[in-house]
Amino acid sequence: MPKFERHIFVCCNQRPPDNPRGCCDPEGLAELQLAFKQKLAACGLKHTVRANKSGCLDQCEHGPTVVVYPEAVWYGRVKMADVAEIVESHILRGKPVERLILPDECLNTPGCPHRAPKPPKENREPEKQNSV
Amino acid sequence: MPKFERHIFVCCNQRPPDNPRGCCDPEGLAELQLAFKQKLAACGLKHTVRANKSGCLDQCEHGPTVVVYPEAVWYGRVKMADVAEIVESHILRGKPVERLILPDECLNTPGCPHRAPKPPKENREPEKQNSV
Repeated sequence: MPKFERHIFVCCNQRPPDNPRGCCDPEGLAELQLAFKQKLAACGLKHTVRANKSGCLDQCEHGPTVVVYPEAVWYGRVKMADVAEIVESHILRGKPVERLILPDECLNTPGCPHRAPKPPKENREPEKQNSV
Repeated sequence: MPKFERHIFVCCNQRPPDNPRGCCDPEGLAELQLAFKQKLAACGLKHTVRANKSGCLDQCEHGPTVVVYPEAVWYGRVKMADVAEIVESHILRGKPVERLILPDECLNTPGCPHRAPKPPKENREPEKQNSV
């Protein structure tokens, strides 16, 4: 059997709830990775494409984050409902899902505006589940 | 800042000590990943090359396993003493460390002679919900 044709890394990192950067898997359930794994198996791709748990991919503000190698396509704010589209469009048909791709001005960029430090706790709005 | 020029995934998976496949990080200390991180920082590569913890890369018999993307070079039986050579030769000079590369007949190959046969179903540990 050859190298994996594609290798999908799904960030499963957890941080404490009050961390200003947020994290990709606050519940620590790795549900998104499991969903990729199941969808790949359902598409007959179990042996050629791997959905891997990953430690922190360092794009926390845009999480949940997923990166697909070898093409290095980075997705942000990936929801369970996006898994089928990523597998069917990107993995099966070779067409990355443009609407989920992290823009260059955000990816791996300490100056990304989403990385601005949060205001003091007492002035914060309540956290949303997938806030950026 | 651009995409990472290279992304090194270091398997930090743990299995119970009696698992026939073994595992890459029996102590769960992620020491190898930390060593890569420190060496990259010492070489001024902190912002362009990332050493990432990874879940099981499924090459357990050849662990500790490391894969470098985007070129998909797979290394097996990587020791702490190999980290400097991988960073200096592969990452800095573009010359992968041949002696550590997993051979094609082992990589991602259920028929690899190093791979322990699966025990009969009745003797297997119960499958975890999301074991990879």
